[in-house]
Amino acid sequence: MQAFWQQLRIRALVALALVFVAATAALAADDPLPSWNDGAAKTSILAFVDKVTTAGSQDFVPVEERIATFDNDGTLWSEQPMYFQIAFAVDRLKVIAAADPAIAGNETVKAVLSGDRAKLAAVGEKGLLEIVAMTHAGMSVDDFSAIVRAWIASARHPRFDRPYTDLVYQPMLELLAYLRANGFKTFIVSGGGIDFMRPWAPAAYGIPPEQIVGSSGKTKWQLIGDRPSIMKLPEVDFIDDGPGKPLGIQRFIGRRPVFAAGNSDGDLEMLQWTTLDSGPRFALIVHHTDAVREWAYDRDSLVGRLDKALDEAPKCGWLVVDMKTDWKVIYPFEK
Amino acid sequence: MQAFWQQLRIRALVALALVFVAATAALAADDPLPSWNDGAAKTSILAFVDKVTTAGSQDFVPVEERIATFDNDGTLWSEQPMYFQIAFAVDRLKVIAAADPAIAGNETVKAVLSGDRAKLAAVGEKGLLEIVAMTHAGMSVDDFSAIVRAWIASARHPRFDRPYTDLVYQPMLELLAYLRANGFKTFIVSGGGIDFMRPWAPAAYGIPPEQIVGSSGKTKWQLIGDRPSIMKLPEVDFIDDGPGKPLGIQRFIGRRPVFAAGNSDGDLEMLQWTTLDSGPRFALIVHHTDAVREWAYDRDSLVGRLDKALDEAPKCGWLVVDMKTDWKVIYPFEK
Repeated sequence: MQAFWQQLRIRALVALALVFVAATAALAADDPLPSWNDGAAKTSILAFVDKVTTAGSQDFVPVEERIATFDNDGTLWSEQPMYFQIAFAVDRLKVIAAADPAIAGNETVKAVLSGDRAKLAAVGEKGLLEIVAMTHAGMSVDDFSAIVRAWIASARHPRFDRPYTDLVYQPMLELLAYLRANGFKTFIVSGGGIDFMRPWAPAAYGIPPEQIVGSSGKTKWQLIGDRPSIMKLPEVDFIDDGPGKPLGIQRFIGRRPVFAAGNSDGDLEMLQWTTLDSGPRFALIVHHTDAVREWAYDRDSLVGRLDKALDEAPKCGWLVVDMKTDWKVIYPFEK
Repeated sequence: MQAFWQQLRIRALVALALVFVAATAALAADDPLPSWNDGAAKTSILAFVDKVTTAGSQDFVPVEERIATFDNDGTLWSEQPMYFQIAFAVDRLKVIAAADPAIAGNETVKAVLSGDRAKLAAVGEKGLLEIVAMTHAGMSVDDFSAIVRAWIASARHPRFDRPYTDLVYQPMLELLAYLRANGFKTFIVSGGGIDFMRPWAPAAYGIPPEQIVGSSGKTKWQLIGDRPSIMKLPEVDFIDDGPGKPLGIQRFIGRRPVFAAGNSDGDLEMLQWTTLDSGPRFALIVHHTDAVREWAYDRDSLVGRLDKALDEAPKCGWLVVDMKTDWKVIYPFEK
C-alpha cells in the first residue's frame, strides 16, 4: 500500500514538474526580449509597443506610421577600439599601399599605417578625407561591395578574434525583431558609409538595403558599350551624423519616426526629431557601462562620445539602457 | 407537352446564361490588367511576372530582389500642357507676388506670370532656379507639405477641369497593384520634387513616402526651444533625372531594379541600368499616341521629349506601350 502511495506521489511530482517546465517554456516563448533583464528598461519598451499597437487605444499608431530608426555603431554593434569602418579603411590602405609605391610613400598614409598615435593625431580632417577617398572611391559601387563583403568575411576583431558581424548586440536584434513583429518598419540611420553597410547589414539585422541610410560620397553614371556602372567619386556628398540624421531621415524616409535608438551625441538630433512632437514617441540611448563583457565609456570617449545626449535624456524622457544591468547577454555567441 | 418542353428549354437557356455570366465575371476577376487591351503589350507583362514568380523556374527572382521603379510625370500621370509641378509653382508665385510687391516687381516673376511665351523663353535656367527657390524654399518641410496638399485639393487641370490627381493612368494603377500582388516593391523615381510628390502620391498610387525618390533641395536642421523643424533652403541638392536616376536608385534603394517604366529621354539611363545586366529584366516606355483621350507627342515635345529612348527601345528589347491601342481606358474617371 505504501508503495502505491509512493508511486502516486512520484507521478504527481512528475506531472507537476512537467506542468512547471511547460509553463516556464511558454513564458520564455512569450517573452519577445529574452536577453533583456526584467526591469524598468524592458518594461517601458513593452508598454510603449503595447499601447501604440492596441486598436482603439488613445495612443494607437497606424502601421504605416510605425517608423523606427536605429543608429548602427555602438547601438546595433560595437564600435571599440575604433569604428569598424576605420578598421576596414586601414586594412584596405595596407592592400593599396602594398601594390602602389606612390601611395605607400604618401605622408598621410605612412602616418595612418605607422599606428603611432601622435602621428595619427596630426593627420586631421583633411588627411582623413584623403584616406576615405583612397579607400572608398575610384571604383564602381559593385566592386566596392565585393571588397567590403570579402573584408567582412575574413577580418577579425582584435579583442574577440571573431568576425566583426559577431559583435552585434543580441538584445538589439531581439528589439528589432519585436518591433517588426508589431508592424514597425525598421531603418538604420548611421554616420557610417551607406555603401559600407549595405553589403552585410541586411543579413546581420534583417534590414533590407533600401532601409539603410548613411553617409555617402558623390557618384557618377558611366556607360561603356552596353555595360553600365555607378562610379564612386572621391568627394563627400552627405554626412549622416548629428543634425544630418534628421535631414537624412526626411530625405530618405519622408516620415518622422515614432521610435529611435542611439548611443552618442551624434544621435542627439535624431532623438530630438523623433520625440519633440505630440503623440506617443519613444527614444532610447544604449549606455556603454560594461567594461567586462563589452566596453565602458561615455563623456570622455573619442569614439561614440555620449555627453550632451546623456544630459538631455532625463529632460526628454529618453530611456537610458544600462548595458551592464539591463542586458543578460551582449553578443549572440554568449548564448 | 409542348409547353413542358418549352419551359424546359427556357430553364436550360437561363441556366446556360447564368453559367456564362458567372464564367465571364470569373474571367474578369482573374484579369489583373482589365484596362489593358489584349495584345502583345499585356501578354509580355503577364509572361514576365509569371516567369520571375514561378518557384523553380530558371528565371525565378527572390521576393527581396523584386524592385520595380516608375517614373511619375507622363508615366503614372499626365504631364501636359506643362509638368503639374510647374503649374503648382506658377499658382504659388501668384500667391506670393500678391502678398509682396518686391516679388511682384521681380523681372523673372513678371515674365513667368505674363504667360507670354517669348518672355518665358528668355527666363532661362537661372530664372527657373530663381522661381523654384521662391516657391519651394524658405519654409519648413511640414509647411511646404501643407501648401502642396492644399493646392492638390483645390487646383484643377485646365483641359479636364478636374483635380490633377484625377489624371493618373488607370492601366498603370493596375500594373502597380499587380506587381505588388506578386511580391514586387514599387518605387517612384521621378525628376519631380521629392517634397512635392510625397504629400499626395501615397494616396494616389499606394506607394509610401519612403519609396518615393525625386529631385531635392538642400535642407537645414533647426531647433528653436523644443520645436525642431527641417527648413528648405533655396539651393538645389540633387536632380533625379537622366543619369541622376540610376544614381538616385543606387543611393535610395541600393539594389538594381528588375522592372522599370518611363516615358521620356529622362528615363533612358534608368531603363539602361535596369535592363543591361544578366537575368530576367523588363522595361517599358509609355508612348503618348492618343491625342483624343490624352495627348500625342514624342520626339519634338518640350515636355517629356521621347527621342533617344525610343531609338534604344527595339535594340534593348523594351516594351513600347502604345497608349492609343494598348489602353482600354486612360483615366479612372472614364470607367
